[in-house]
Amino acid sequence: MTTGKQIFSTLADGKLTVEVAEAPVAEPTGNQVLVRMEAAPINPSDLAILTGPADLANAEYSAGKFVADMPEPFYSGQKARHGIRLPVGNEGAGEVVAAGDSEYAQSLVGQRVACVPGTAYSEYCIADAGLCLPLGDISAEAGASAFVNPMTALGFVETAKAEGQSAIIHTAAASNLGQMLVKICQQDDIALVNIVRKQEHVEMLKGLGATHIVNTSDDDFFAQLCAAIDETGAYFGFDPIGGGQMTDTCFKAMEQVASRKMTEFSRYGSDQAKKMFIYGRLDLGPTILTPAYGFGWTLSGWLLTPFLQHAGMETVIRMRQRVLEGLTSTFASSYKANVTLEEMLTKEAVLDYSVMRTGEKYLVTP
Amino acid sequence: MTTGKQIFSTLADGKLTVEVAEAPVAEPTGNQVLVRMEAAPINPSDLAILTGPADLANAEYSAGKFVADMPEPFYSGQKARHGIRLPVGNEGAGEVVAAGDSEYAQSLVGQRVACVPGTAYSEYCIADAGLCLPLGDISAEAGASAFVNPMTALGFVETAKAEGQSAIIHTAAASNLGQMLVKICQQDDIALVNIVRKQEHVEMLKGLGATHIVNTSDDDFFAQLCAAIDETGAYFGFDPIGGGQMTDTCFKAMEQVASRKMTEFSRYGSDQAKKMFIYGRLDLGPTILTPAYGFGWTLSGWLLTPFLQHAGMETVIRMRQRVLEGLTSTFASSYKANVTLEEMLTKEAVLDYSVMRTGEKYLVTP
Repeated sequence: MTTGKQIFSTLADGKLTVEVAEAPVAEPTGNQVLVRMEAAPINPSDLAILTGPADLANAEYSAGKFVADMPEPFYSGQKARHGIRLPVGNEGAGEVVAAGDSEYAQSLVGQRVACVPGTAYSEYCIADAGLCLPLGDISAEAGASAFVNPMTALGFVETAKAEGQSAIIHTAAASNLGQMLVKICQQDDIALVNIVRKQEHVEMLKGLGATHIVNTSDDDFFAQLCAAIDETGAYFGFDPIGGGQMTDTCFKAMEQVASRKMTEFSRYGSDQAKKMFIYGRLDLGPTILTPAYGFGWTLSGWLLTPFLQHAGMETVIRMRQRVLEGLTSTFASSYKANVTLEEMLTKEAVLDYSVMRTGEKYLVTP
Repeated sequence: MTTGKQIFSTLADGKLTVEVAEAPVAEPTGNQVLVRMEAAPINPSDLAILTGPADLANAEYSAGKFVADMPEPFYSGQKARHGIRLPVGNEGAGEVVAAGDSEYAQSLVGQRVACVPGTAYSEYCIADAGLCLPLGDISAEAGASAFVNPMTALGFVETAKAEGQSAIIHTAAASNLGQMLVKICQQDDIALVNIVRKQEHVEMLKGLGATHIVNTSDDDFFAQLCAAIDETGAYFGFDPIGGGQMTDTCFKAMEQVASRKMTEFSRYGSDQAKKMFIYGRLDLGPTILTPAYGFGWTLSGWLLTPFLQHAGMETVIRMRQRVLEGLTSTFASSYKANVTLEEMLTKEAVLDYSVMRTGEKYLVTP
């Protein structure tokens, strides 16, 4: 049995230990393929397991390893993973070096594919052939982020269409995913209200052709948001921040726009249905909802995997095909730095990628 | 043109003025009826307009009138009603003394009916005949609360059934509405988790035959709640409190029960869909949602009127018929005190009913 290097994250005794270790490489069976990984992005969704709210500044760093305190209530809140050595890395790209019996899995041998192994920060991964995307001439770096962000951005538009919406609010619009959403919405004729935090993000999205951009740093942010909702009819939004009052602010703005159109006062607020989805937790603080917009609102969690399960195979295949066609255009990702598995666990790298700054994504190249 | 006494609530210049005034009595037209009101309950939903978060303890009280400061942010938050003299009182019962042209409206003349005029704290009201319930031999007092609580409680069960649920959590189970819900759920074979705040409420609900009762005052409240969810499969609940962490607590308990059944750790929490509805704002503070139950949850406002509009006429007629048949049993209400329009605005009465203590509902008998 051969072995390969892999990153594991373990939470135990109040401490988070992340380390590179040698692990056995399993034999692919059935519809599985064995991929020699070439590139894997560090997405916010990976950081939940990789670093989370651990005290990274004061952690002990050694070669290929760090040990950090995990503060309460986050340590107790993750009871289900205490003592379990978890693999990390949702997605990546590499070469298929072996496959299970299935015809499709076998057909991928020797090809470069994008894959979703859940163990992507590894030299070798077992992946489901059904979720692999053959990359042809596209490089592993260009194909590494072919799943999480593209499918999530497409999933937002699919969700909006399924609920009869023709406009969307996105509360972290300058992100990699946000930029994809700008392009998808243009292609699909969906109005998009882009919320950003900095003037440079306004300029960047304008450069992509975005038309409704509101900046939380401006004094008249709330008025800008109301105007954009009024112009687009966006009573439906997606928020990756989670904590704080961003969703509350969107609901308030939606309600103010809707109530301006009312001819009669209602103690219960407007009839306008308002819906927001939280799809990430960039802010781990509590979500605050004030009683300022009646009862005509819904707030819901949104995750890619249940969405895909619910959407059905036909929709998923159509989405995957669209990603493949747009991998170097609509769905292109860019990276700040490439790191090896060992470099990924140095203090310098950890403190840099864990803050999740817009446009500063890391790529792991084992 | 005749006139009648009526209560009006006006918010202006930072102050809430509530007073009895003479107002013209309109002629009913079309499907309208004119009802001489005999009894109208003061429900929490009426208090939103009648008192809200005004400073009632320090208000100026005079005959048939009080004037109270409305603190911020509540004054500015109700901008849409500034300067508007609003009628008050959702529902009540009385005798139909005139009717519009429609055959059905005419057929009600001379009958005692339950009605939903929105102006129920009045000597005379215009009401929609379509929402009137002919009371026959039932007294106005017994019929006064035939709409809001009974239809809301039935609406919860209809909502649960429509979403394929066979169990419900109710977070204010000792209320008048909560007691109705206990009886409806027994009749319809829906499991009900009753959350109460006092041991006397536990005893009271036991007396009604409730089987799952958890008391927030007990040290092991959270464990009780988890056990009840586990036994009933209630991942679907209704909350009239709104502010604070009651919905958060329910989501947490649902997730803990669901994750105990999981065989594998998931960073995203369990697959179990969890849903809570806020249908009131007994607590006007913000709703706090902590990141402790993944992304498989939905929190939504729930209001009777949009529910009924969505449910369709056939369902509404079936629900109304059920209320009429159970008005002195399943849907019976009880009152702490009867007050006239003038007595309703005395300091003693206002300070008493505005706290919305369980089992201490007032009835207005103009």
